[in-house]
Amino acid sequence: MCAHCRERAGASFDVHALTVYLAGGEEAWALRQRVTQAVANDPLYAQKTGKADWTRAQLYERTLEMYLGMTKKVLSMKEKDPLAAGRVLRELLDEPCGLDLHVGMFIPTIQGQGDAEQQKQWLPLCYNLSIIGTYAQTELGHGTYLRGLETTATYDASTQEFVIHSPTLTSTKWWPGGLGKTANHVICMARLVTQGKDYGPHAFVVRIRDANTHVPLPGIAVGDIGSKLGYNAIDNGWLRFDHFRIPRRAMLMRHASVDADGMYHPPKVAKVAYGTMVFVRADIVQNAALFLKKAVTTAVRYASVRRQSNADPSTGKELQVLDYPHCQRTLLPLVATAFAFHFTAEYMRNMYTAFEKSSRTSGDFSALPELHATSSGLKALCSARTKDGIEECRLTSGGHGFMAAAGYSGTLGNYAPNVTYEGENNVLLLQTARYLLKAAQRVAKGGAPAGGAAYLLCSSAPARSPLGKSTEMRDEHALLDAYRHRSARLVAEAATAAAKTMARGGDTFSVDQLAWIAAANAHCACVILTAFQDGVRAAAKAGLPASGVAVLRRLFVLEALSGMDSSLGDFVEDGFMDASQARLLRATLRQVLGDVRPDAVALVDSFGLSDLFLNSCLGSYDGDVYNRLFEYAQAAPFNDSQTGPGYERLLQTRLSKGFGKPKL
Amino acid sequence: MCAHCRERAGASFDVHALTVYLAGGEEAWALRQRVTQAVANDPLYAQKTGKADWTRAQLYERTLEMYLGMTKKVLSMKEKDPLAAGRVLRELLDEPCGLDLHVGMFIPTIQGQGDAEQQKQWLPLCYNLSIIGTYAQTELGHGTYLRGLETTATYDASTQEFVIHSPTLTSTKWWPGGLGKTANHVICMARLVTQGKDYGPHAFVVRIRDANTHVPLPGIAVGDIGSKLGYNAIDNGWLRFDHFRIPRRAMLMRHASVDADGMYHPPKVAKVAYGTMVFVRADIVQNAALFLKKAVTTAVRYASVRRQSNADPSTGKELQVLDYPHCQRTLLPLVATAFAFHFTAEYMRNMYTAFEKSSRTSGDFSALPELHATSSGLKALCSARTKDGIEECRLTSGGHGFMAAAGYSGTLGNYAPNVTYEGENNVLLLQTARYLLKAAQRVAKGGAPAGGAAYLLCSSAPARSPLGKSTEMRDEHALLDAYRHRSARLVAEAATAAAKTMARGGDTFSVDQLAWIAAANAHCACVILTAFQDGVRAAAKAGLPASGVAVLRRLFVLEALSGMDSSLGDFVEDGFMDASQARLLRATLRQVLGDVRPDAVALVDSFGLSDLFLNSCLGSYDGDVYNRLFEYAQAAPFNDSQTGPGYERLLQTRLSKGFGKPKL
Repeated sequence: MCAHCRERAGASFDVHALTVYLAGGEEAWALRQRVTQAVANDPLYAQKTGKADWTRAQLYERTLEMYLGMTKKVLSMKEKDPLAAGRVLRELLDEPCGLDLHVGMFIPTIQGQGDAEQQKQWLPLCYNLSIIGTYAQTELGHGTYLRGLETTATYDASTQEFVIHSPTLTSTKWWPGGLGKTANHVICMARLVTQGKDYGPHAFVVRIRDANTHVPLPGIAVGDIGSKLGYNAIDNGWLRFDHFRIPRRAMLMRHASVDADGMYHPPKVAKVAYGTMVFVRADIVQNAALFLKKAVTTAVRYASVRRQSNADPSTGKELQVLDYPHCQRTLLPLVATAFAFHFTAEYMRNMYTAFEKSSRTSGDFSALPELHATSSGLKALCSARTKDGIEECRLTSGGHGFMAAAGYSGTLGNYAPNVTYEGENNVLLLQTARYLLKAAQRVAKGGAPAGGAAYLLCSSAPARSPLGKSTEMRDEHALLDAYRHRSARLVAEAATAAAKTMARGGDTFSVDQLAWIAAANAHCACVILTAFQDGVRAAAKAGLPASGVAVLRRLFVLEALSGMDSSLGDFVEDGFMDASQARLLRATLRQVLGDVRPDAVALVDSFGLSDLFLNSCLGSYDGDVYNRLFEYAQAAPFNDSQTGPGYERLLQTRLSKGFGKPKL
Repeated sequence: MCAHCRERAGASFDVHALTVYLAGGEEAWALRQRVTQAVANDPLYAQKTGKADWTRAQLYERTLEMYLGMTKKVLSMKEKDPLAAGRVLRELLDEPCGLDLHVGMFIPTIQGQGDAEQQKQWLPLCYNLSIIGTYAQTELGHGTYLRGLETTATYDASTQEFVIHSPTLTSTKWWPGGLGKTANHVICMARLVTQGKDYGPHAFVVRIRDANTHVPLPGIAVGDIGSKLGYNAIDNGWLRFDHFRIPRRAMLMRHASVDADGMYHPPKVAKVAYGTMVFVRADIVQNAALFLKKAVTTAVRYASVRRQSNADPSTGKELQVLDYPHCQRTLLPLVATAFAFHFTAEYMRNMYTAFEKSSRTSGDFSALPELHATSSGLKALCSARTKDGIEECRLTSGGHGFMAAAGYSGTLGNYAPNVTYEGENNVLLLQTARYLLKAAQRVAKGGAPAGGAAYLLCSSAPARSPLGKSTEMRDEHALLDAYRHRSARLVAEAATAAAKTMARGGDTFSVDQLAWIAAANAHCACVILTAFQDGVRAAAKAGLPASGVAVLRRLFVLEALSGMDSSLGDFVEDGFMDASQARLLRATLRQVLGDVRPDAVALVDSFGLSDLFLNSCLGSYDGDVYNRLFEYAQAAPFNDSQTGPGYERLLQTRLSKGFGKPKL
């Protein structure tokens, strides 16, 4: 019996049922399989398996080709819901593309900030790709801080034009995806200056390249910023304006506007864009779940095939790597975390949907502060944990994890930017901290913080954890309470420090920054565990078989225990837990790892990720690792010739000198 | 005044004096500068700045060319010590090469295991590169565990030949550097079978490629294993033997041998190779120091140029990134760790030299167990910490850290294998654990463990840390004692668990693995702090100015405090430290970060790393980050044309349709 077959036969739960549940039901799962099948048999899409050896130019061109072919492909499938099929196909491609910001930022910004006439002018051209746009905000010297942008758009009433200009080197637009070579338009964020006054950053639609030749227009300098750690299918670009003139109506005018005479009208509603940011961050959390699932699927499957050291005297076989405690301690909590993030993403989507509905139908924006705070922190925590998790998975795969054939290098390189974009993670955690400070201040005044921060009220609750004393160490409520206690304590301590700092006129989020980042992380851990618990309950309610619910409960306990083990100091520092509980925690954690171990392969199977998506010789469903690695190596471009690049020039004479015929 | 000038002007110590001291004295520092100068002006070597955009073939060929040119280059410099100059040049190239294993493994193995006649036959050919070899040990299915190797060398007395054979797919040799395309010989580790008996792995010298054509000889199949996460200048390869015959004397016979009739003679001294392993690991620790210095130099310099958010109302300028507490908390301890590793590498070299001398002159091998245990654990801890540290540095550089121009991607990719090769890190930590168990058993019997483990005797010493109670939180002795207490406690706990496990007939290094890995890491942290402390004392003794010694002492305290903060649970779990001490620890850490902050740029300057070595737009000495980034982008190959790859085929028609001339 093959290694994976043996593992699968030993699973304690119905894998198919869990797979379907995670995929969102029978219909969604069937669609996913149909799309996967259709793509696997299409040479355009199936070529991606050798991707790691493509040059950057090949990666760019082939990815662009696959994207441009998506519409045709989806339509050929004659699916009832072509958009849903397209989303699955997009996920399978698993590569960023020069068109991403056209779809994800250029079009939505025109939709959201253009007035009716502007939408009518540009959107049809966008939809049929007669123009391709991107979103140019970040500058060479300015990132997260929007107010720091230097590019100016100065209104000239005499010609009714804006003059866009890059006054300094640091004002050079830098990073927009697709800007380097693909796009011929941008949304340019520039400081609007009119009638001698600077009104700060506003959005302008600017054509930058000639429609026929794709050459930059006079006054525009644009190019690619060079290769990166990953994301190289995208032509991230730079852009400079030299007093470049655009019509007045190139400014998106739905909210703010400038009259022909230069009179400025500010937007009526501030912060209208917050909702969209929450949506984007929910998406990042969902992506975190997806990429953690991807890495851990590969790592668990390979660890159940690979054997190393400590030969069993009875069989003479080396020990299964997944049976090493240190491998289990690394991988199985990551499996649990992938589930936790899955349910957290669901929680965020629900939260966003509820907010969107209540704000739209009854003008109720009251949920926004919590939504903003939670989504900021979760984006930070989940993306950082996933990035690190991918690398931890790679390391459990030993030397072979370093090969491109393993798939980790591509995953790492393409996932890494999630930690930096859409808000740098420390900056985002400080957003969560601001919300927590307000909540703490409310508690101090006898008030009750809303929603997910309500537990802060209980900070004076049990100062000693019942875990292992009056409850089992696996008690779900006591575990969650422990996380809440920690968070409440860290928030209270940071708030106390803040009061002192503010009394001195200082900025607490700068002075007490480390304490606030710790508090925000601790709060987010509570949100995640709560979402996980709610997700398990919902699964039970939705009819997931009891064996599946049981395994999810075990994973909840594993997520909670392993997190406590990793930041034990937080739980013992104030005496909430003592040395005997710490020891019991470690012993219980080891037992839970042992309980989850037999289900490990079945659990990653339930993520339902196809071989095409995984794109890994180590992670394929059949576990035929060594044949796949060997075949992969045969196909490596370096093997097109028996001699290496430069052999004739550098080595031939040297090596053949003095050897009439081979000796030895 | 430029940002870096301002920083340098504020340093509290004499940078030149510390630079010279770290470089190993005036002479060594002068040599380093001469080589750097000579290389910077040589087009062959200066070309490396654009390296991130090279194809793999270019990277392979150009790196090989630079290596092959080294001898000529060094000789042209007419240095007194050409070998020392060569080492500096090799470091500056900062790229692995297909010849590394020829120099680092093939030649040394022949020197160490070949008899006089064999050395005479092969070594001259090796020295003038008439043959190029590599070291083929690891197999597709077998890594760390030497006894698991499957390749066989079966002696055929009738022809006096060995028949080398790869009996299975998993026996395919996999990974040897330079094997893919460069080498025409290997040292093949194969199970020696003679007179019907398997004597386990032995070393054989095997020609695999024709001297004139470089084509694999009949019976040999060989190729490259494909691209990797990094290290792509090296052609790591695979190799299969199909009953390939080699002469009897191709077996290296200095220690073991096989007679013409097939009689096997085992080696007289076992484990002769341990000394070399220690030497290699000392080298890895030194490399860890070098690469951590490299990353942190770039990160600190860029953080002292880059500004972000929180504009200062008085200047309107955004805040210096290095003034953010979270940036300081990440970077400054890494500066301290780089110094710690520097002195640890020195300690290991001294330890090795002493052992080498005593074993050679008086046959005293008694230091070997500690040497082996310490070097194993230090290799693991230092390489893991460095790999993670490089990534942490990258993250403090924000989005621009993701660009190849920043230099981190190359550093990460090329450094990463250190964690896996020369012994997987968990496996190595368990080697340290074996030594610690023996030491603990000796203590339990009333004996005293030797050398660096002697502190285990003090495990029953102060159960409460005096830090912040009867001593300052910065007290060096109390800090070191805290680390020793932690280590002694973790070793004692693991040893207690081991006693129970062994009583049940279990393998403690499997059953109690996590406890042993924790104990080994804690022990290594003590060794590192001790080496750091000794290093500072030696610097003072050697006449380093007091200001330099003072800053090193601060870094020692920072290393100790930040390590405690990161694993606080270990120090508070057993009540050794309490909540008030934990709070004081964090407050003191923040003060120390503040104390070190003004010296940050000067400290990384003192590492003496040249711009050529750093190869980073963010890390250059002059801090002219934005001009460098802009120039780098201009030179990116993607900018050779205004249109991207595939434009004519994929985009032109679409984008020009319906547009007679540019609108807007």
